[in-house]
Amino acid sequence: MKPTSILNLLYPLPESAASEDFQTLLTRPGLRIERIVSDGQVSPPGFWYEQAEDEWLLLLAGQAVLEYEDGQQVALVMGDTLLIPAACRHRVVFTAPRSVWLAVFCTAEVAAAR
Amino acid sequence: MKPTSILNLLYPLPESAASEDFQTLLTRPGLRIERIVSDGQVSPPGFWYEQAEDEWLLLLAGQAVLEYEDGQQVALVMGDTLLIPAACRHRVVFTAPRSVWLAVFCTAEVAAAR
Repeated sequence: MKPTSILNLLYPLPESAASEDFQTLLTRPGLRIERIVSDGQVSPPGFWYEQAEDEWLLLLAGQAVLEYEDGQQVALVMGDTLLIPAACRHRVVFTAPRSVWLAVFCTAEVAAAR
Repeated sequence: MKPTSILNLLYPLPESAASEDFQTLLTRPGLRIERIVSDGQVSPPGFWYEQAEDEWLLLLAGQAVLEYEDGQQVALVMGDTLLIPAACRHRVVFTAPRSVWLAVFCTAEVAAAR
């Protein structure tokens, strides 16, 4: 098999928009890699992400603040990574314009097969 | 489960060194995410990577040039991504100082289970 063509995650970015932009970059059984472009969007009041998959996050550009259910907030800058385990409730309380995330989702099934 | 602490992939970088620096960031069955810091290193003459895993590459900082067996060379800049399928022979012919890669390796076993 041949290598794929090159795709740049930072240029061009989608036009500024009212909603976040999601692009799936790679899928495998139990694995999905996405680029997410946030343009100031935050989670709606009272909304919590509570996912069946582990989510490994890398902030490629911009700034963001996440909040956990215990009230802890963590600020992220370019290059920051963290793992949000499945079922860990979290929300997004700040994103700078043109913030770019890389998100790697791993299903619980894959983790259980270890 | 709690989210992990934040780890930044760009700062601090390891001291300039004679060999590349490899750091495993996440492992799951059939999945491994690594940070690789290249500091001008290239593949030795005549050496080809020929891997059992698919490798999804993202250049986070710096510049690099890859070469394939048919002689094609591809230049990568910050934000560039590509997928090098398992068994696709390739080598690194240029890296700028302090180049930082994110490499996601997916085993053929996982791909076959699709």
